[in-house]
Amino acid sequence: MKTCIIGASGYSGRELVRLLLDHPHATLERVTSRSLDGKKVEDCIPKLRGKGCLLSFSNPSIEELCRDENTELFFLALPHGAAAEYAIPLLEAGKKVIDLSADFRLNSAETYEEFYGQAHPAPEWLDKASYGLPELHELSWDNSPLIASPGCYPTSILIPLSILLRENIVKKEGIVANSMSGISGAGRNATEKLLYCERNESAGPYGLPKHRHLSEIEEQLSNFSSNDVVISFHPHLAPMNRGICTTVSAQAEGELDREKVVDCWSAIYGHRPFVNLLPEGEFPDVAHVAGTNRIDLSVHADPRTGRYVLCSAEDNLIKGAGGQAIQSMNVCQGYEESAGLL
Amino acid sequence: MKTCIIGASGYSGRELVRLLLDHPHATLERVTSRSLDGKKVEDCIPKLRGKGCLLSFSNPSIEELCRDENTELFFLALPHGAAAEYAIPLLEAGKKVIDLSADFRLNSAETYEEFYGQAHPAPEWLDKASYGLPELHELSWDNSPLIASPGCYPTSILIPLSILLRENIVKKEGIVANSMSGISGAGRNATEKLLYCERNESAGPYGLPKHRHLSEIEEQLSNFSSNDVVISFHPHLAPMNRGICTTVSAQAEGELDREKVVDCWSAIYGHRPFVNLLPEGEFPDVAHVAGTNRIDLSVHADPRTGRYVLCSAEDNLIKGAGGQAIQSMNVCQGYEESAGLL
Amino acid sequence: MKTCIIGASGYSGRELVRLLLDHPHATLERVTSRSLDGKKVEDCIPKLRGKGCLLSFSNPSIEELCRDENTELFFLALPHGAAAEYAIPLLEAGKKVIDLSADFRLNSAETYEEFYGQAHPAPEWLDKASYGLPELHELSWDNSPLIASPGCYPTSILIPLSILLRENIVKKEGIVANSMSGISGAGRNATEKLLYCERNESAGPYGLPKHRHLSEIEEQLSNFSSNDVVISFHPHLAPMNRGICTTVSAQAEGELDREKVVDCWSAIYGHRPFVNLLPEGEFPDVAHVAGTNRIDLSVHADPRTGRYVLCSAEDNLIKGAGGQAIQSMNVCQGYEESAGLL
Amino acid sequence: MKTCIIGASGYSGRELVRLLLDHPHATLERVTSRSLDGKKVEDCIPKLRGKGCLLSFSNPSIEELCRDENTELFFLALPHGAAAEYAIPLLEAGKKVIDLSADFRLNSAETYEEFYGQAHPAPEWLDKASYGLPELHELSWDNSPLIASPGCYPTSILIPLSILLRENIVKKEGIVANSMSGISGAGRNATEKLLYCERNESAGPYGLPKHRHLSEIEEQLSNFSSNDVVISFHPHLAPMNRGICTTVSAQAEGELDREKVVDCWSAIYGHRPFVNLLPEGEFPDVAHVAGTNRIDLSVHADPRTGRYVLCSAEDNLIKGAGGQAIQSMNVCQGYEESAGLL
Repeated sequence: MKTCIIGASGYSGRELVRLLLDHPHATLERVTSRSLDGKKVEDCIPKLRGKGCLLSFSNPSIEELCRDENTELFFLALPHGAAAEYAIPLLEAGKKVIDLSADFRLNSAETYEEFYGQAHPAPEWLDKASYGLPELHELSWDNSPLIASPGCYPTSILIPLSILLRENIVKKEGIVANSMSGISGAGRNATEKLLYCERNESAGPYGLPKHRHLSEIEEQLSNFSSNDVVISFHPHLAPMNRGICTTVSAQAEGELDREKVVDCWSAIYGHRPFVNLLPEGEFPDVAHVAGTNRIDLSVHADPRTGRYVLCSAEDNLIKGAGGQAIQSMNVCQGYEESAGLL
Repeated sequence: MKTCIIGASGYSGRELVRLLLDHPHATLERVTSRSLDGKKVEDCIPKLRGKGCLLSFSNPSIEELCRDENTELFFLALPHGAAAEYAIPLLEAGKKVIDLSADFRLNSAETYEEFYGQAHPAPEWLDKASYGLPELHELSWDNSPLIASPGCYPTSILIPLSILLRENIVKKEGIVANSMSGISGAGRNATEKLLYCERNESAGPYGLPKHRHLSEIEEQLSNFSSNDVVISFHPHLAPMNRGICTTVSAQAEGELDREKVVDCWSAIYGHRPFVNLLPEGEFPDVAHVAGTNRIDLSVHADPRTGRYVLCSAEDNLIKGAGGQAIQSMNVCQGYEESAGLL
Repeated sequence: MKTCIIGASGYSGRELVRLLLDHPHATLERVTSRSLDGKKVEDCIPKLRGKGCLLSFSNPSIEELCRDENTELFFLALPHGAAAEYAIPLLEAGKKVIDLSADFRLNSAETYEEFYGQAHPAPEWLDKASYGLPELHELSWDNSPLIASPGCYPTSILIPLSILLRENIVKKEGIVANSMSGISGAGRNATEKLLYCERNESAGPYGLPKHRHLSEIEEQLSNFSSNDVVISFHPHLAPMNRGICTTVSAQAEGELDREKVVDCWSAIYGHRPFVNLLPEGEFPDVAHVAGTNRIDLSVHADPRTGRYVLCSAEDNLIKGAGGQAIQSMNVCQGYEESAGLL
Repeated sequence: MKTCIIGASGYSGRELVRLLLDHPHATLERVTSRSLDGKKVEDCIPKLRGKGCLLSFSNPSIEELCRDENTELFFLALPHGAAAEYAIPLLEAGKKVIDLSADFRLNSAETYEEFYGQAHPAPEWLDKASYGLPELHELSWDNSPLIASPGCYPTSILIPLSILLRENIVKKEGIVANSMSGISGAGRNATEKLLYCERNESAGPYGLPKHRHLSEIEEQLSNFSSNDVVISFHPHLAPMNRGICTTVSAQAEGELDREKVVDCWSAIYGHRPFVNLLPEGEFPDVAHVAGTNRIDLSVHADPRTGRYVLCSAEDNLIKGAGGQAIQSMNVCQGYEESAGLL
């Protein structure tokens, strides 16, 4: 499988480069970046030095990319809006696209406009794209050549919560999700608020009550619930490079019974390589999943409130970004799901 | 005012030493510690070097402390259980006591036993002690010579939430509080899980759903609400030395209106030196309050869920421990509330 | 003493604001900043909230500042080059100036041009300014109304080393100084290399072998030695907000004897409030001096190499910047040297 | 190649487990630990969850290990002293041993006793063991079945410096090496000084002037120089999990010429997979090598002092521990040197 990454200068893009270079069945043919055009990849991503990567960043036109007969699959690691500009012509040229931006994660163009403040650039593709959580959605190139790979917050909430809504184990009302994200989640932008001395020894909420990614979280939860689901979502920044931990509080539907959650999770995730259910009494920790494509889950029943507490932890740059995108590629290509990700 | 600190080897105790040494109206006569007995204070708390502190740690018997005519006020910075052993004889000897442990924060001996796993050592004092949140409780030595100074989690939740319950601005059902604490909140114990390499680049929940401090949080909230209040409380550790930020989600009672919360907070806290209400759209941050006795608050209305999001940040070792204890002393002594704390 | 800070948007400037607001004998009349013009000081430096600071940043012309009869002393917290533009007219208008930049720290205009790559803007003032290390230079307004306050690296090297050169306790050849600085030493500039994720879990040298501040270090050492002194200086960045630790290796002149260093240091620094000599076998640590105006020193004799190892630690934003400037003010004004600094 | 790790509970041991589990030509048959006996490996090293590791820690007797016909190679990740107790019987039983402790790194039993404060337990093996820096020593099982794998500080100093001494490019007098180590270098011991809150926002020297590892550094340098070499070595701790950066100052022998160093390094290391020479003007950074088996090097000529500055950075737990041990195994076994390490 010959692949190309469009826009690899950010933290997610860099991690994706690393993962694709190590992939047993895919080759990375090309890496593009406007800002790094002409520079050697291993000079810009020093962790890769010594691995024999001979690539340099280039900045080809979209037309040139579409004409590239050598490359079948394009990973888009671009900001929302910019991603659609590349995706549509590439798809029309018969390419496969895995988009790490938010551009094709929603079904509703109205919701896109509400949360992103601009009209969707290609609404006709919203229905055709596959939302790419491989544990929850059946992915195949036949279904769609366009996979919208979800980001870190949605992954950390949807994996524990969505199937509990589908199975009526939790009520759809009163759900509260709190997340702590490492600083790389805010991107690699040279702004004052992301300086070391501003974020070190710092912690707090931001972007609530209507963070952009809430839109796809709720759309997905609503799909699973077959009802409109509206939740409270509180993102926070914590002083660490990587990782997200999420704690969801949800009212039990029917009898509160921790085993119901465990059984439901086990049935869906028990055989999947990257979802790990913790034993009773243990909690997920970002330190345990950093550098992996795993998401660790725990559930705790609180008889005092009649609520379940669902906890998850993942690496925001791997399971919450490039690792998940590769996992989707693996599934669609018929490779082992964990190829290049262990 | 002549004071003594019992058990000053932990992080809270050390901070209390520093604050009392700088206090304009109080003197620190004695600092005790079993493990540091005989050592000079400035050798054990190197930040204090050069300030002219001539004290050494001592380890007197309780009887000796009770007979000490020189000292009027004792701060107890001891583990729960141990605090009561000192408090009762000191009180019986006519001393004043500000206890930083959990031993006298509850009214109910049953709740104490439920959450702390042992019978309360002096239940007859539970009614007589004052819960010492100076912004919420009227403190005076006449009311009680024993002040139970609340810790970091309760302070971060009670200040934003309790008066909204009293004023029926939020519903008592479905409240969810999430907190992120710096590592000093876990104490100064040489255990593996608190090692630098275990906690750095780490984040996650712990101790839920029934953290010990939930007992006093709910008892206080119930008092303010005049109803039994049961909440969900999710403590987390984040990789920083100090600070707590808390995000509370609570359903609006009646119409959702951010101004109702602002007005209520302003009426109670507007003239208090250590509660700071942030302008609309800003969020508290641990970095902004570290090293101060302040608690920063913000409120956000979420019309999609009908909920208020209440956010707070404080320094767990100052407003969440020794600073608050001194603030209570200031109030009871008739000093300016902020004496020694700005 | 009525004071003004010119250019208070950086980390040093902010710390200086805090210190002057708390000073018992000085008042802060005005704080200027081009980028923060019009904003309230406590909104921009959130640690100050609740302290009753009513100042806002302003951006007056130099002429306006010169005409300001209300203000006697100006602290310049500006980049080099910009500082001289303000200092000269202010001095000509009869004001006193404490400059935290490098503009007046050298005696030699040639050295300035060599290390800063531009001609000195006011070479006639180089001789007239006082280098402001209060422990080493006799400071008075009579000597000069212009004090060039040294920065963090020079302070950390000059205090342990200069008097040993003067007293011929160490040889002037083969001196090697290594320093580790917290990230705030690199300033508050929104550049990629200072982003949290770039600096966290990162450490390494930079700017060697000819860091700009080496020029003043060597000029001062040469003055003390009465010889040309050329040293090796290796600055490093370490992942922490504040602090510098420096380790100097110097060949013993004559017999190697730790007590000779201790005695020399004690004679000069024993009565000074901010130089702290550690007992044998202990080492300075940034954590012990952060937030203070102190510099901690230790010396270790290595009979295997015939060398002394001199170790120091200080807070780069206090003893290495604003605290030292205030200490100089205290000395010149006849206040207690430690006024406002304990 | 069937392997066993003895004593895998520390940070180095854990990393070695991870590396061996991923090795293409070696299998990990057994992992021993007294403290973790009976526990599943993936429960104790949570990063490994989901990788299919079925091993549990065991605690067999030395005799049992010697009788184990299944296992050919034993990695010892034990404290010094304890390592020799295992190594000798294993070697006598015909096993191969790669020892990560200091027990067999010296040639001189006197030096061992001087630096480690106890007589060497098996001095007859000191001559027979190979010092295992694969870039500098020819390793083969024929030479010795016992490889003493050097630790992090020696590796970071010997790779840049030793061959410059051998080629008379630097003088052997007046060498000063300063190192900054991440906290994992101090081991996984539950002691107060290694607690998160003690080490975070902390930096300083320790253990100088006669750190234990100086003994093997000097012995190796003396071997390369064919002279007695005595250096100044200043280890420091910096607040990060992993990594070491070292800055060595050495006087040029003959003409100072950066190219002489570059050429010497290139001749020896140019074809080796794990030594990376940086272009002029760049500096090594711990962040660039963390998680890899690489050591990055730079050299800077200082005409003002006639000295070279040699800078290196490596991951202390990989190139400075388990990665290097595996690299030695690869070489001895005739595998590709980088097998399992890219």
